[in-house]
Amino acid sequence: LNILWMGVRLLRESMGGLMDEALPAAELERLQACLHAAMAGAIQIHALKTRRAGRLVFAEFHLVVPGEMPVREAHAICDRLEATLQQALPTAVVTIHVEPETQAE
Amino acid sequence: LNILWMGVRLLRESMGGLMDEALPAAELERLQACLHAAMAGAIQIHALKTRRAGRLVFAEFHLVVPGEMPVREAHAICDRLEATLQQALPTAVVTIHVEPETQAE
Repeated sequence: LNILWMGVRLLRESMGGLMDEALPAAELERLQACLHAAMAGAIQIHALKTRRAGRLVFAEFHLVVPGEMPVREAHAICDRLEATLQQALPTAVVTIHVEPETQAE
Repeated sequence: LNILWMGVRLLRESMGGLMDEALPAAELERLQACLHAAMAGAIQIHALKTRRAGRLVFAEFHLVVPGEMPVREAHAICDRLEATLQQALPTAVVTIHVEPETQAE
């Protein structure tokens, strides 16, 4: 019977990887904390989404900055946050969507 | 034997939905054309990636704009491109990463 349960659990875990499962809540909180510690210059980080896909973790979030900030400057913040996230989670593939303050979605 | 092949094909198709399969090349080209027609103000669109997940299609790409463009203005272009893509493909969930001209990745 134990073997049956082990089989079910293994199957569930591997299906999770196929079915766009997010990371566990504790892991998400750890990543949020890393991002918040490194977001100087930006106003807000929101809509953090993660999904496991085999060995990789795809992560994306929205970064809110002042509307008049030049794209060059916003992108420098993106690069820093991307590096931070990849340090916290080496298998992360990061996509950041930048939003002006007045239109955060 | 035919039934067997049909079964294999059905399985392959449904697995494709689970395994981050991109859209067919012809469909990708159609979306590229729509995006290029609506990208006024931007310099380049690249790294278009799509994946089916059940009924939805997740699409993301990089949008290159002049580095000194304000984020507000770049985001207005994003909104327009997002609407264009959703018109061409109503089930699309779109994520755009904006890059300054000098650092297109």
